[in-house]
Amino acid sequence: MTATTHTATASNTAPSPTTDAELETLLAAAQSAAAPLAALQPAERAKLLDAVADGLDTAADQLVPVAQRETRLAEARLRGELKRTSFQLRLFGEVLHDGSYLGARIDHADADWPMGAPRPDLRRMLIPLGPVVVFAASNFPFAFSVAGGDTASALAAGSPVLLKAHSGHPALSKLTADVVVRALAAAGAPDGTFALITGTAAGASALRDPRVKAGSFTGSIPGGRALFDIASSRPQPIPFFGELGSNNPVFVTERAAAERGKEIAEGFISSFTMGAGQFCTKPGTLVVPAGSDLVEALREAALPSAAPLLNDRIQSGYTEVLQELAANPRITVLAQGKDPLADPPSPTLLLTTAADVLAEPHALQTECFGPTSVVVTYDDESQLPALAETFAGQLTATIQGTESCSVEDLVEVLTRKAGRVLWNQWSTGVSVTYAQQHGGPYPATTAAGSTSVGTAAIERFLRPVAYQGFPQHLLPEALREENPLGVARLVDGRLVDDRRVNGRES
Amino acid sequence: MTATTHTATASNTAPSPTTDAELETLLAAAQSAAAPLAALQPAERAKLLDAVADGLDTAADQLVPVAQRETRLAEARLRGELKRTSFQLRLFGEVLHDGSYLGARIDHADADWPMGAPRPDLRRMLIPLGPVVVFAASNFPFAFSVAGGDTASALAAGSPVLLKAHSGHPALSKLTADVVVRALAAAGAPDGTFALITGTAAGASALRDPRVKAGSFTGSIPGGRALFDIASSRPQPIPFFGELGSNNPVFVTERAAAERGKEIAEGFISSFTMGAGQFCTKPGTLVVPAGSDLVEALREAALPSAAPLLNDRIQSGYTEVLQELAANPRITVLAQGKDPLADPPSPTLLLTTAADVLAEPHALQTECFGPTSVVVTYDDESQLPALAETFAGQLTATIQGTESCSVEDLVEVLTRKAGRVLWNQWSTGVSVTYAQQHGGPYPATTAAGSTSVGTAAIERFLRPVAYQGFPQHLLPEALREENPLGVARLVDGRLVDDRRVNGRES
Repeated sequence: MTATTHTATASNTAPSPTTDAELETLLAAAQSAAAPLAALQPAERAKLLDAVADGLDTAADQLVPVAQRETRLAEARLRGELKRTSFQLRLFGEVLHDGSYLGARIDHADADWPMGAPRPDLRRMLIPLGPVVVFAASNFPFAFSVAGGDTASALAAGSPVLLKAHSGHPALSKLTADVVVRALAAAGAPDGTFALITGTAAGASALRDPRVKAGSFTGSIPGGRALFDIASSRPQPIPFFGELGSNNPVFVTERAAAERGKEIAEGFISSFTMGAGQFCTKPGTLVVPAGSDLVEALREAALPSAAPLLNDRIQSGYTEVLQELAANPRITVLAQGKDPLADPPSPTLLLTTAADVLAEPHALQTECFGPTSVVVTYDDESQLPALAETFAGQLTATIQGTESCSVEDLVEVLTRKAGRVLWNQWSTGVSVTYAQQHGGPYPATTAAGSTSVGTAAIERFLRPVAYQGFPQHLLPEALREENPLGVARLVDGRLVDDRRVNGRES
Repeated sequence: MTATTHTATASNTAPSPTTDAELETLLAAAQSAAAPLAALQPAERAKLLDAVADGLDTAADQLVPVAQRETRLAEARLRGELKRTSFQLRLFGEVLHDGSYLGARIDHADADWPMGAPRPDLRRMLIPLGPVVVFAASNFPFAFSVAGGDTASALAAGSPVLLKAHSGHPALSKLTADVVVRALAAAGAPDGTFALITGTAAGASALRDPRVKAGSFTGSIPGGRALFDIASSRPQPIPFFGELGSNNPVFVTERAAAERGKEIAEGFISSFTMGAGQFCTKPGTLVVPAGSDLVEALREAALPSAAPLLNDRIQSGYTEVLQELAANPRITVLAQGKDPLADPPSPTLLLTTAADVLAEPHALQTECFGPTSVVVTYDDESQLPALAETFAGQLTATIQGTESCSVEDLVEVLTRKAGRVLWNQWSTGVSVTYAQQHGGPYPATTAAGSTSVGTAAIERFLRPVAYQGFPQHLLPEALREENPLGVARLVDGRLVDDRRVNGRES
């Protein structure tokens, strides 16, 4: 199948920017959808997510060719990403069936509560925030775009979604949105549960609208910070879950370099060039022992051939940052394909020293979105914690070590700097699981307390409410005494796991 | 005991503002304390909290008279509040022993994970944010001040605390801080775990400092918003947990007014005048059926006698807002003691109509910090949801109803507006429990996703981190396979409750 096979349908044309009048209609619809969507049982919302997942799987042969054309990514990669995307929707369905995400807590009235005053009957759970605006990313046209992780977690939470399309894949965005809207409608979702909006101005207007209760974003530091500032400076500020930028440093101990130098060189090259280096978890720095065979292995390695970047803007941004880094007198070229600045660009490995990074950390840690990474040589392993300390907040940080290495201090620093710390693995390829954490201190994200990947992502679009002294019939089902939803709850401070055995639990 | 009995010690003098040099020393100490405090086992941190609680209880006879003198609150109230404060510290100790708060999740490696790629071993838990700055409140000189809820939850989380003293009780702040610092030192806490700072400038400087990772605050809307703006506009923004203002409306159904009018009138008067009306949960609006006996009961009620406000600034702010409200042509006086503007002020009940509130909601819902509340009459119960819709975000909202009332629509609106919704109870007197929620949409707070009271408050000062592919010996104990801390964990998506039976669990 070639990129030109499926371009003849109306849905493949790029939508024009959302007008103010259109946006008003969509915002009103999203607000109208909020209460009925929130009122659905979690298991009913799971059916909506399953329907979207089924719709995406069914439409794969329509979606993937358009994605190929608009993103220049390979078909196999895109098909894998689409599979991940529908899997993610279904995994949130599982979370809804389980119900633990509601964080249900029940305190029965207690006349002898030792605080000094009787304890009333209090019942607390998480409820949806209301309509949210999600800004799609360019580099994962399925998994972080229209029907991606943020849409999945927001819909799972029960929050209607206004999805700001990324300009890098407009026709795919429209086509995917059509699939989502049709699937939701067929499954009985309230009108206004999901809508696509286009254009920078419409996205910013939506984020400013008082009906919108949260925003999420994956993209650049300047773009994300501008949106964070809008969200924070509203008359009524709202949470903004922005994923902005990350260098994802890797620290190789002396013994690991000696014992596994060749393997580490291969793993690193494969990781930093994966997806043409356009992953937010690309290892942008590899810290290695000076004079080790690993440095030579990297110098002599066969770098992968050039692969096209997503679009012209990313291509020009990449070559600009690469030239800036290469012009820094502290940096030399370690290895490079023959056309590093061409379109498509050959991969580049730059070289500097720990002393240089300590002297000028920010300039040498600039994120270079594309197939470039910086190798940093150190003289003594004891320098590693201080070197790690120079990094800003990160999505990931990695240690390549051996069991006998003393890396406790390094682990302490990296845990403080990053949302995910890896041992002898590579940061690219973020698994969608229960325990995943894709986030980290600023500028990796604007909300280090949350994750954008994994089942815990649902928590971003929820807030707690407590009911005091309520009659049973007015309580949400998750808080009623008989526990009709069978969810795990904290009852009088003790965890009580009443979850029923059902198809998903067996 | 009188307010003048214990004023002769050096600790009773107000501290001078923290200088830049002093602040630098305290910030450096807090940063140094962060890693060792975070590294303590949860049960070890529980001992620190218990030590502070014991210290406060032991010092009660020194603390309470100073509090009486500086806040003009009654001894019995202050002793009760101090008991609540030490109870709260010990309750967080219980949370630490339990360990569920860590949110531990373990995904074992799974080659057949249906996402389309093998799942690595991933282990996620919450870790402390690092040093935080806590701005103390004026109206709870113990429970929301130096050793209050925010200090307790931050220390429990493992985050060092810089406590910005409230200017309303400077000597008490110094005395309490001395108790806290001595107790922490004696219990072996790292140096720098807690420090008092004084002065508006020092508080703002601390909030701007890159070593500080979060802020919390209880106070006015303008003050809280100014600090929120500082926290959000930093080069590296940090979370700011501000509790700003709340009207806490109460909606009385027709049947409830008919069946329990007298009881509701008494409960309301007691609640809005409690603590001289200086509670953030004071019911500021009572919505009642026009022409009901309840209105007459309120008109003829004996209001409590005048009680002094906390200080001159609050006294003048109160009389200013009261005069502004009373001058509004939509408002008349329903009932008033004989000296409503004197110091101390007699309580005031104002009167308006639902139509007036719908016409001019914001002016009529202004928070009046002191013993004033507004009674709003409605003609038809079906107006209540629309009336509720006019309110901004609230800490609490209350329904006084009967089991046969149709209030589902009202509950839906109030759940959306407030952090806590009450039925036939009064919002003042916030119990410290597992299921408490003291928070709500802006301007009630700047962070509706969190609570400042109850055990869930610990979550504000934590963030998640995941370890991928880690060897057992480098993992935090809560994530090791054998579960040495015996904490409840989500293992491969299933809740596993390994908590050991110990003294606290029995």
